[in-house]
Amino acid sequence: MGGNLMRTVEWDNGVVKMIDQRLLPGTFEIAEFTGYREVARAINEMYIRGAPAIGAAAGFGMALAAYQSDATDRAALLRDLGVAADVLRQARPTAVNLFWAVDRMLCVATDENLVYVDDVRDAILADAQSLADEDVEINQRMAAHGAALVRPGESILHHCNTGALATVDYGTALGVIRMAHEQGKRIHVFVDETRPRLQGARLTAWELKQLGVDFTLIADNAAGHYMRTGQVDICFVGSDRTAANGDVANKIGTYKLAVVAKENGIPFYPVVPTSTIDLDCPTGDDIPIEERDPEEVVGLTRDGMPIAPDGIKVGNPAFDVTPAKYVTGIVTENGVAYPPFELSLKKMVLGE
Amino acid sequence: MGGNLMRTVEWDNGVVKMIDQRLLPGTFEIAEFTGYREVARAINEMYIRGAPAIGAAAGFGMALAAYQSDATDRAALLRDLGVAADVLRQARPTAVNLFWAVDRMLCVATDENLVYVDDVRDAILADAQSLADEDVEINQRMAAHGAALVRPGESILHHCNTGALATVDYGTALGVIRMAHEQGKRIHVFVDETRPRLQGARLTAWELKQLGVDFTLIADNAAGHYMRTGQVDICFVGSDRTAANGDVANKIGTYKLAVVAKENGIPFYPVVPTSTIDLDCPTGDDIPIEERDPEEVVGLTRDGMPIAPDGIKVGNPAFDVTPAKYVTGIVTENGVAYPPFELSLKKMVLGE
Repeated sequence: MGGNLMRTVEWDNGVVKMIDQRLLPGTFEIAEFTGYREVARAINEMYIRGAPAIGAAAGFGMALAAYQSDATDRAALLRDLGVAADVLRQARPTAVNLFWAVDRMLCVATDENLVYVDDVRDAILADAQSLADEDVEINQRMAAHGAALVRPGESILHHCNTGALATVDYGTALGVIRMAHEQGKRIHVFVDETRPRLQGARLTAWELKQLGVDFTLIADNAAGHYMRTGQVDICFVGSDRTAANGDVANKIGTYKLAVVAKENGIPFYPVVPTSTIDLDCPTGDDIPIEERDPEEVVGLTRDGMPIAPDGIKVGNPAFDVTPAKYVTGIVTENGVAYPPFELSLKKMVLGE
Repeated sequence: MGGNLMRTVEWDNGVVKMIDQRLLPGTFEIAEFTGYREVARAINEMYIRGAPAIGAAAGFGMALAAYQSDATDRAALLRDLGVAADVLRQARPTAVNLFWAVDRMLCVATDENLVYVDDVRDAILADAQSLADEDVEINQRMAAHGAALVRPGESILHHCNTGALATVDYGTALGVIRMAHEQGKRIHVFVDETRPRLQGARLTAWELKQLGVDFTLIADNAAGHYMRTGQVDICFVGSDRTAANGDVANKIGTYKLAVVAKENGIPFYPVVPTSTIDLDCPTGDDIPIEERDPEEVVGLTRDGMPIAPDGIKVGNPAFDVTPAKYVTGIVTENGVAYPPFELSLKKMVLGE
């Protein structure tokens, strides 16, 4: 966080530490966990969010399970790890990274080169640590490619939260912004508040404040005004899933932003690790759109009053699809992909 | 209100009454004012909003000023009315109806056929009352022209609040929706919540619920998704001020909506009384954009917690300008104007 607080999730001498993001931006509080069941509960209760951060937490949760176990032989340790894996997997059943991280730790545990159970324990911790470090390294590579697109003095529009808090550290689109700032480019950022969950107002604004980046928080509705009046130079957003043709599924509102950016000749760049580019998904129309709890839309108060009448119908799609024709380029850790995306994305993912 | 509560603003025996819209949808409360400075403050603090309602309130404000004045000759009364006019004009500097209503009252005050100052006072009140009545009649005429554009079963996207609460009664864009509903067209409405002030969630949802219209409340960010996926047939919005070339200044977010509507081939109609068409304003670039209190953006809570960090910069433009090229047609009480708007709007306003 701002290079001076801590990572979203860390291992510290037998303790897993997480920033409790549910309390931000009001309170910065670090929660500590000494058992894997508590880690599972923290994932479930959304102390942290974002696929990479959840994956890293699960990895450290498995390491805790390994050290908690009083097994003296490998078979007993594997039994205990199997129980922990089940508990952790159930924490967020839709989080693919969670399953991937747990399986990766189980795979390490079965490495036949490890003779003693203590060696297995240490190997799991080392791999969990690698998993976290890899995320940070990928983010910094994406940031370098993205920051090269930013000219000194430019004003950047950003949607949702894609920062250190959404990852283990550094962030994706917000990592680009951080690096441009660290390169002394005197940037300014328009921060979309990002209704309904307000990740921009709650988390991105908090992160940029920590980093000392000059920014202005705006209602999502205001982004068009700033774009039309020439106050935005470039847009960076994240992407939850990118299709093989360059269609991008990202936080609701991204599509509107991309259309208006194109209309005003403003470059629009999603910043995406290649792990989220799905070459098996031909177009954005093949990406299912999750419908979320109406409370996210209506569960706010102003001056202690509800913001909507009771008992009404609410539509709350979590994501939208931005067709590739509105996307200038896609920033990955392996470089920036440009149209035609069918070719360039394949190259980024497979190195072909 | 649904034809059964009261008008948004009324004169009742020396008292100006307004529905305090800041308390809706939680509480229905009527505020009473006995001085023009209080009326100006109420306009400024947005007890009421919406161009026609503001115009009517300003008319009644001038009537209050006339009765408050202890002038015994016309020159003294005109001096007092001039002071009141200045105070009322400054309440909402972008509200063209405010200026228009104030000027109309000043014009009545200078009618040389009125000999006694008490006659002048009575004439101002009578004209303020006419102004309010005319608004309701104009809205019903607009609604008839607009409702003719709606086909049975269509889904309508609506931004902000343009209903009875935004006018003296019946509404502008929401008046069109109301009439289409009353004509039995089985419409559905997507209601943009309209950040930052949430007039859609708080007021439009409340009004549509009163009227029994089928609707779905959505975050503004979701509108693009519903448009791109073919779930929106037509858009109706209001306009605070329309330039001679058809550029439309309306609630922040309208511009984004109009661009995305055009991109998806969805007709986009502002519904505007001719009193808000400013033939002396050549283009939207000549319309000043009011910057409002940052609290409107950050002054919400979720689970009792602030939605943004303290002490940050906030951008809060109240309006944006939608260039005429995104506008399909402009619905007025005299018919629907189509491009070229320079000609058609002049015809609507002047009958030329």
